[in-house]
Amino acid sequence: MKIIRSVKEMQDQAILLRSQGKTIGFAPTMGYLHDGHIALMRQARKENDIVIASIFVNPLQFGENEDFDKYPRDEARDRKIVEKEQVDILFLPDISEMYPNSMGVTMDVVSRIGVLCDRNRPGHFKGVITVLTKLFHLTQPSRAYFGLKDAQQVAVVDLLVTDLNFPIEIKMVPTVREPDGLAKSSRNVYLTEQERLESKHLYQALQLGKQKIIDGQKNPVMIVNEVKTYLKQNITGKIDYLELLSYPTLSPVNLIDEQVIIAVAVQYSQARLIDNIIVTP
Amino acid sequence: MKIIRSVKEMQDQAILLRSQGKTIGFAPTMGYLHDGHIALMRQARKENDIVIASIFVNPLQFGENEDFDKYPRDEARDRKIVEKEQVDILFLPDISEMYPNSMGVTMDVVSRIGVLCDRNRPGHFKGVITVLTKLFHLTQPSRAYFGLKDAQQVAVVDLLVTDLNFPIEIKMVPTVREPDGLAKSSRNVYLTEQERLESKHLYQALQLGKQKIIDGQKNPVMIVNEVKTYLKQNITGKIDYLELLSYPTLSPVNLIDEQVIIAVAVQYSQARLIDNIIVTP
Repeated sequence: MKIIRSVKEMQDQAILLRSQGKTIGFAPTMGYLHDGHIALMRQARKENDIVIASIFVNPLQFGENEDFDKYPRDEARDRKIVEKEQVDILFLPDISEMYPNSMGVTMDVVSRIGVLCDRNRPGHFKGVITVLTKLFHLTQPSRAYFGLKDAQQVAVVDLLVTDLNFPIEIKMVPTVREPDGLAKSSRNVYLTEQERLESKHLYQALQLGKQKIIDGQKNPVMIVNEVKTYLKQNITGKIDYLELLSYPTLSPVNLIDEQVIIAVAVQYSQARLIDNIIVTP
Repeated sequence: MKIIRSVKEMQDQAILLRSQGKTIGFAPTMGYLHDGHIALMRQARKENDIVIASIFVNPLQFGENEDFDKYPRDEARDRKIVEKEQVDILFLPDISEMYPNSMGVTMDVVSRIGVLCDRNRPGHFKGVITVLTKLFHLTQPSRAYFGLKDAQQVAVVDLLVTDLNFPIEIKMVPTVREPDGLAKSSRNVYLTEQERLESKHLYQALQLGKQKIIDGQKNPVMIVNEVKTYLKQNITGKIDYLELLSYPTLSPVNLIDEQVIIAVAVQYSQARLIDNIIVTP
């Protein structure tokens, strides 16, 4: 496995590989890798000649009061994981490589926001699409892999690629879960023992909602209320949001007759957990 | 010469060419081609395996009161010109191909603006960088060619490519002029006979300014005043701006000790002319 830290070297290498007719699969991450990230690399490995993974904790997507400084990092451990997954190139730029100057060109998202995580993290997706635009230009992927745990991120990336005509196929990879159902996340390490025990109920609540839709319930308000009641009975964390929206357009629905997402965010003492389930009625 | 109108076909073709190791030179235009555009195609022809030219009058870069509807168009004539210049692919998308939906992702420029053409065309460069991002993704150029007549555009495109890490070399092509010095422009057809005669003084005024710098004048105010006086004595059009700034950063200078641009815009009855000269002291 080759480790590249320079943006110029990364781009030269990627351009060379594409000019040789190779396909490139790209898995962008912020590191502190878990099975969710590994799933991205494994699917990329199956579908492409070359796999590039990146680790970059992007300051642009953290709010002023968010956890950029304390976001968990462990490069040595991450390198071993990536190497084991037969990734060809690990791109590890530092901040001065990615943002040598303040940005003179800015990007923003005006659709698929104002709901879910965007409510409490204004500017977050602006930072996400900016860094992804840069990473896409640097790694030249044929296909890029994103986990469905961050379902709003996937919806926004889908919009980015469509609206700006990136020549990239976006691959949505199912959420990887702990045996009890908790979605894997780098932030799970911040849960207390009690919080970790009860956090399995997030996914169970979402599955309850899904079952209601399968059973024929078409009223989103009824479903949201039932799921919320279940959550309140089973968890102590504060429900940040619980929403049922069309997917991937993320618009409110009056009647469930298209693909929808039920998404939840719960704030615990030191960690904010998100999870979701996508249902086609 | 191949004519392509579909964005998908254009992108598939460009990706295929790059995967075969070919270099692509790209000349984006809004059509109604003149010698300035031809210079872009000729330089691209010399430096690349494949030359792609595009003709697309981009509504996003026209202000509400600007000349989008009456911007001159002549596809049949343009096609002949492009063919003669041995362009391999002419990309001719219509608006519904380029903007099938309203944009959910937006772009903006925050540096190198607030001066020159941006003063009177708010939002213009926002439209320019958005369409260029799309065109770059569709045509996959190794090198893209821009005329220095639109010097602020070149400076902004340089920023776009640098800040977002586009894998593209931006080539600045010198302004092509009429025998009397008037910079070639699609908008010159709107000059009256009298305006056309006196318009040669724009370039003469700029050359006067350049000569002052070469002669050792380091005070930008003195130079701007002399050039302005010359213009007022020789033209009837309204001076929209006359500015001396650093280039390509477009910042005010107190003392001329780096590369600068002297740029002018003149409003005539039916046409707004711009011109500039870049000087290294």
